[in-house]
Amino acid sequence: MSLKAYNAAVFHLLGDPADMGADVSRGYYEDGLLIVEDGVVKKLGARAELEPGLPADVQIASFANALIIPGFVDSHIHFPQMDVIASPGDQLMDWLNEYTFPAEAAFEDPAHGQASARFFLDELLRNGTTSALVFGSVHKASVDALFGEALARNMRIIAGKVLMDRNAPAHLCDTPETGYGDSKALIQKWHGKGRLRYAVTPRFAFTCSEKQLRLAGDLLNEFDDILLHTHLSENEREISLVKELFPQFRDYLDVYDGCGLLANRSVFAHGVHLSADEMKRLSQAKAGVAFCPTSNLFLGSGLFDFARVKKHGIKIGLGTDIGGGTSFSLFQTMNEAYKVCQLQGDYLDAFTSFYLATLGGAELLGLADKIGNFEPGKEADFIVLDLEASPLLARRLKSCRTIEERLFVLSILGDDRAVRRAYLAGDLAYARA
Amino acid sequence: MSLKAYNAAVFHLLGDPADMGADVSRGYYEDGLLIVEDGVVKKLGARAELEPGLPADVQIASFANALIIPGFVDSHIHFPQMDVIASPGDQLMDWLNEYTFPAEAAFEDPAHGQASARFFLDELLRNGTTSALVFGSVHKASVDALFGEALARNMRIIAGKVLMDRNAPAHLCDTPETGYGDSKALIQKWHGKGRLRYAVTPRFAFTCSEKQLRLAGDLLNEFDDILLHTHLSENEREISLVKELFPQFRDYLDVYDGCGLLANRSVFAHGVHLSADEMKRLSQAKAGVAFCPTSNLFLGSGLFDFARVKKHGIKIGLGTDIGGGTSFSLFQTMNEAYKVCQLQGDYLDAFTSFYLATLGGAELLGLADKIGNFEPGKEADFIVLDLEASPLLARRLKSCRTIEERLFVLSILGDDRAVRRAYLAGDLAYARA
Repeated sequence: MSLKAYNAAVFHLLGDPADMGADVSRGYYEDGLLIVEDGVVKKLGARAELEPGLPADVQIASFANALIIPGFVDSHIHFPQMDVIASPGDQLMDWLNEYTFPAEAAFEDPAHGQASARFFLDELLRNGTTSALVFGSVHKASVDALFGEALARNMRIIAGKVLMDRNAPAHLCDTPETGYGDSKALIQKWHGKGRLRYAVTPRFAFTCSEKQLRLAGDLLNEFDDILLHTHLSENEREISLVKELFPQFRDYLDVYDGCGLLANRSVFAHGVHLSADEMKRLSQAKAGVAFCPTSNLFLGSGLFDFARVKKHGIKIGLGTDIGGGTSFSLFQTMNEAYKVCQLQGDYLDAFTSFYLATLGGAELLGLADKIGNFEPGKEADFIVLDLEASPLLARRLKSCRTIEERLFVLSILGDDRAVRRAYLAGDLAYARA
Repeated sequence: MSLKAYNAAVFHLLGDPADMGADVSRGYYEDGLLIVEDGVVKKLGARAELEPGLPADVQIASFANALIIPGFVDSHIHFPQMDVIASPGDQLMDWLNEYTFPAEAAFEDPAHGQASARFFLDELLRNGTTSALVFGSVHKASVDALFGEALARNMRIIAGKVLMDRNAPAHLCDTPETGYGDSKALIQKWHGKGRLRYAVTPRFAFTCSEKQLRLAGDLLNEFDDILLHTHLSENEREISLVKELFPQFRDYLDVYDGCGLLANRSVFAHGVHLSADEMKRLSQAKAGVAFCPTSNLFLGSGLFDFARVKKHGIKIGLGTDIGGGTSFSLFQTMNEAYKVCQLQGDYLDAFTSFYLATLGGAELLGLADKIGNFEPGKEADFIVLDLEASPLLARRLKSCRTIEERLFVLSILGDDRAVRRAYLAGDLAYARA
């Protein structure tokens, strides 16, 4: 039995502020104590209350000018696109051909995948991201590399090999059958091993034949707790191309639905241009979307209508969408999510932002029983934030009177520097130099 | 005579890429040498060519994995708003009342102004900004504090005390006469001293009576090389309020024009919602605008139509607009400028971004004969960028083949960490810890 205790200000969310009310949803201890036993949260509370009950031999790790929060959840990111981040000049469809496909081709080489996996997971952790839903490349080896490295770190990663059998360079295409077979082999090899899970990952309807999508749907049926991870309604040209390719379906979402891919385990990235009807069906299916503001702005895809999607009761998480997105940081992602809402006259409060980046993401990914906050029994994935990470951040935070103000300032001014440490299941996985 | 030489990759712009063509406008030396004599650029060229001509006793400061560029020019920023950066929840008019006016009130105290001026100029330099056009508060003392500190650093700062005589808390209002008198006293005390210049600074038409604006116009007439610095067409509610207040003028710009404030020395912040006619008149007057993307997004003001304003031949610079803006970094400002253009289907190339942040800003501020690039005779305000400032930046830059790609990556991934050193008139003014 290993008992550890961490002392700092501690904040987490018990549920969606929109459902519970901001006051009820938030748990905050100015001088808190997070007690972890065997990698799992045992108790969270005020230090003054919990410290007397600790066995005498338990050392408390105290952090000054710090805030402990649950590790961030990145709901949509592409592992093989690290090296195309900040590639200029085009919207989605040209950008894929110009930059992304060439970069993904390099992942045919397992050695490249392994070296990249180390860098990728290092980068997630230095940004405070302890869980992510990840696109691999079309190559089975890319997912082997990522899962292997994540398993070694005991990191809760959900990933899948991309399925695409058309409208992409031939050397990056699989077939419906090989895609199905490779995915199944990966599921059998990795799904449920350590903290890993699998997501069936058709790139998007434009690069998948109906047959491939239907076989993806078969996989979703065959395995209970795997996810479906794909793109939906990101860009207007994409949408019209999908309509041309699938005239037998009434809209973009209907393509996925008709192939058995619309379920409560489905995570659709973007959803920038959803119709009211599509929103209704997403809600009925209890499916969810990943809101990727830095990507939507960088690729000029449009403004995600957070207020409207939320009103439909659709699950929402935040995604960096590296490499269309411009930052690995969920702070920077919150910054731009706020701006996307402001441009539409909507207000994204700080509690909701942090909910999206932690528990909301966990709910979207079907992991809310494991991670996302500090309820007893959950895995102790948490980060220690440095409230003095830069002179400006330190100065600005000092003038804040409430935790809501502090969180908001962090969501606007924060970046990887604000992450002092990251813990995975109670073990130190990253410490800022 | 003091002769110094700096070696690294060196980049600057000789003019507007849109006018000269990207290839002609750029000056780039992969292994460059910047020679500075008595604080002024003596020569820039390839090291191999220039080094043999250097006197033997001149030591060359060499920087590995670095890029030297001209110091950034911030075309619009509020000195007394540092502490309201990242204040949530409202659009412009409410945001001013809720956060900004209370913060500005503190600048009545000269001690607060002095301490803030040090922090403010430190923050500019750590972000690589060596010149700025700055709003003070309504208090003469705020500008005294800022100019005093800037003079001590030999920094090229243009600033002015805010004029506002209505629609603001009484203790923050001046009168047309005291505003005129205080401004004049500040001009006589500071303008032309060291590298300082003055800008007559009516907040905006909403908080200024016609009489105050006309007296501001008188000041502009009385002194040759002072600037006019104000806000224009930032937010839709602001615009309609201005129309109500000034029914005798045909539009927002006409208010300023009618009061003698539309000139080739006028810098208008924002201009998000300009009519075609306003653009034409700005162009004819050779006036300019400061494009402030992080602020326009944060306050939900709207999307600056860069392509259209540019097509009208209006001078454009980049502004952080702290505290409505969310970053002191011109890199982050370029990042969001790019996104604002992308959302409108326009492409902002990297050369143009860096032009806006350096020489373009200098032209807007009437300083192009002094700063903005490395033409011989210009003041040696420059920054040394660290191309390995973060693991991701280092990795991404390594895959770039051209200087344009490298600049673009910097414009998206860069922040204050990328600034290793800042020099003012040849003297080291900031070195990253």
